[in-house]
Amino acid sequence: MINYPSKLVEEAVEALASLPGVGRKTALRYVLHLLRQDTENVRKFGNTFIRLREELKYCRTCHNISDTEQCSICANSKRDHGLICVVEDVRDVMAIENTQQFTGVYHVLGGIISPMDGIGPNDLHIDSLVERVQSGEVHEIVMALSTTMEGDTTNFYIYRRLKDFNIPVSTIARGIAIGDELEYADEVTLGRSIVNRVPYERTFQVK
Amino acid sequence: MINYPSKLVEEAVEALASLPGVGRKTALRYVLHLLRQDTENVRKFGNTFIRLREELKYCRTCHNISDTEQCSICANSKRDHGLICVVEDVRDVMAIENTQQFTGVYHVLGGIISPMDGIGPNDLHIDSLVERVQSGEVHEIVMALSTTMEGDTTNFYIYRRLKDFNIPVSTIARGIAIGDELEYADEVTLGRSIVNRVPYERTFQVK
Repeated sequence: MINYPSKLVEEAVEALASLPGVGRKTALRYVLHLLRQDTENVRKFGNTFIRLREELKYCRTCHNISDTEQCSICANSKRDHGLICVVEDVRDVMAIENTQQFTGVYHVLGGIISPMDGIGPNDLHIDSLVERVQSGEVHEIVMALSTTMEGDTTNFYIYRRLKDFNIPVSTIARGIAIGDELEYADEVTLGRSIVNRVPYERTFQVK
Repeated sequence: MINYPSKLVEEAVEALASLPGVGRKTALRYVLHLLRQDTENVRKFGNTFIRLREELKYCRTCHNISDTEQCSICANSKRDHGLICVVEDVRDVMAIENTQQFTGVYHVLGGIISPMDGIGPNDLHIDSLVERVQSGEVHEIVMALSTTMEGDTTNFYIYRRLKDFNIPVSTIARGIAIGDELEYADEVTLGRSIVNRVPYERTFQVK
């Protein structure tokens, strides 16, 4: 039990310690840093989060974070709107966009099926994905979820929901990361990389 | 260069990434966490920092963080107001208070002399410490600063400022930490622990 010299400091520490992975010692360090800033800066700091929560929108098509009703990716007519990459959250969109290898659009689920955390299919944006497929303009779905039990469960659930539409559903390739040494790779990954081997002429193919 | 899907998210990430030791990836994780909270909670989160910066006071005697004009330690008549422990910031006060071994009061410098960072004696609460000593009610000063070059410089500067008042100035003991093994101790610490050895009957003395 730590005794704070001030109730205000204690409240600020508790607020920051509510962030994932931040303990009270680190939070106190942040608070002391904020106290060294001038009042105007700290007001701006605090208001940033209030504005974020109140004004942020989610794209009505793909549920990606956006400042407008439709996100910049869905609004881009140069992208392939028939190729949908299904991801867990906005960080995955940013990571894939960074590769500059994907020319389609996204569908952000907003999480993955996790019975342990009480998250079922109805808590995720799966119905709207089915609706997008139903519209008939989709020619391929790429599943890009984590290779965890939850990710696999979600993959399987979505695959079953989409089966009747007869459009190809793929998952991103799993295998040995570039730069990794074989001897240190886990056997499941190594096994998958052998089963899903790629013709040599396609190995270095990057758009 | 990361492209954020929203200006609001980018601003919130930049705000959190301004905290010491927080990178943009971690900040984004915090932002996504905040987006999952309800609006009222996030408003409270943001306002906590604004209130902190606007309402927090510093004790007029010892400069410790406080909700009132005088901090709870300086206001406590049971403490020895003639025994002053000089520390760098509020974290040190909290750490020493936690030991429950110190019955005096504090003087928070608000930093240490560090020419590299442009912090000189005039940027710290040293004059007010001299004034407290001048008042004639102080019978001992305990210096509890870090054993860095900056800490030693500050120790020396304050020692010289207080020399003419003829009151004892001590520093907290440096030595082998409890539970540490001798063979792994650095030689400076080990050397100091030999020079500043303590009579056996005082070794386990804890108030």
